[in-house]
Amino acid sequence: MAEKTVDIATPILSRNERLADELRRRFAETGTYVINVLSSPGSGKTSTILATNERLRAAGLTCAVIEGDIASDVDAQACKEAGMPSIQINTGGLCHLEGNMIREAVDALDAGVGMDKIDVIFIENVGNLVCPVDFDLGENLSAMILSVPEGDDKPVKYPGIFQHAGVNLLNKVDVAPAFDFDLDAYTATLDNLNPEAPRFQVSATKGTGMDAWCSWLLEQISAARA
Amino acid sequence: MAEKTVDIATPILSRNERLADELRRRFAETGTYVINVLSSPGSGKTSTILATNERLRAAGLTCAVIEGDIASDVDAQACKEAGMPSIQINTGGLCHLEGNMIREAVDALDAGVGMDKIDVIFIENVGNLVCPVDFDLGENLSAMILSVPEGDDKPVKYPGIFQHAGVNLLNKVDVAPAFDFDLDAYTATLDNLNPEAPRFQVSATKGTGMDAWCSWLLEQISAARA
Repeated sequence: MAEKTVDIATPILSRNERLADELRRRFAETGTYVINVLSSPGSGKTSTILATNERLRAAGLTCAVIEGDIASDVDAQACKEAGMPSIQINTGGLCHLEGNMIREAVDALDAGVGMDKIDVIFIENVGNLVCPVDFDLGENLSAMILSVPEGDDKPVKYPGIFQHAGVNLLNKVDVAPAFDFDLDAYTATLDNLNPEAPRFQVSATKGTGMDAWCSWLLEQISAARA
Repeated sequence: MAEKTVDIATPILSRNERLADELRRRFAETGTYVINVLSSPGSGKTSTILATNERLRAAGLTCAVIEGDIASDVDAQACKEAGMPSIQINTGGLCHLEGNMIREAVDALDAGVGMDKIDVIFIENVGNLVCPVDFDLGENLSAMILSVPEGDDKPVKYPGIFQHAGVNLLNKVDVAPAFDFDLDAYTATLDNLNPEAPRFQVSATKGTGMDAWCSWLLEQISAARA
């Protein structure tokens, strides 16, 4: 593979790092807590964001969402219907979000709502277990969602993203009886890859475990804004 | 996004096209039918390959597998245990397979088993709905697998790969009652994106629909080798 290595990655990544630092300063100024939501396609990023938004809103927080998709705006529409300010980014084929896209989206949120009115931004990344991990978006927390139907071996096969996560959510636990998901194997792999990050078992659509996850999240938000 | 466009993609892709053509000629010489298996992580690529292998073997065909993974060799081990010659490619973080990797894997299969003894090769691509679609691997057929738990909106959100597919499989139909999968919406989107490619509803682990898919596949293999 060495022959195809042209060093384009280093300048892109270092430019992205500068943008991420700029975003981080900007988020700190307005006291906005930012969560980069990562998973495969179809693991439940949008439904987890919607269910989390409900609980944070009940706690008095205003949440917005930045939706990253290859195409379509179905997720942004769903978030808008739930009353969240929503910015759609269509990556036009790119398999991850980058800092420059987030900067544009934040400009749009600032113009539309005012960043000082937004307590929390969920960034819903492109569904991909590989590429998004290399791109810091200035977030406070990267939240990785695996869903039960994907199988317990995913952390073994895509270790980078599980290792990188600040929190590991296991979603769709309500359908666990229909699948051969070995929770002990999943736990053992994460104990090895990323023992520090807390884990929550949830069903975003049924509500299971959402209170525990959200009360932990509220603590993180309070601590970051203290 | 224009500012980050450095034209590295064109030379890499055109080099890949040359490699793909070379691979295609090589597969034609030995009468080996090659299937590029595409899906998200956890949609059931490996279990579909194993269940398909069983039926093709019963029809007198010898199948091998090339496993593409970011890390680990759990899928290659599972295929080996099922008696298939298996070559593991670890992409070391790269989110898709490229022609040069397949060439090395085919060299290894040729050295180990002899390509003239292999009727069918399954290439299990990295679980990713975005990047693999740009890289022709010289295959006869690209088989896209969506699984019911991922949701009916995936073809809307990741249209490229569903459009590119030579066949669209819907896997894990046995668990459909536990999920809100709108089959009419899925069908309508595919009717629009890719009306030509046949579709099969399967459960690779339970066996549902596997005979229909495999008898169609056997016809394709016969036609290609005629």
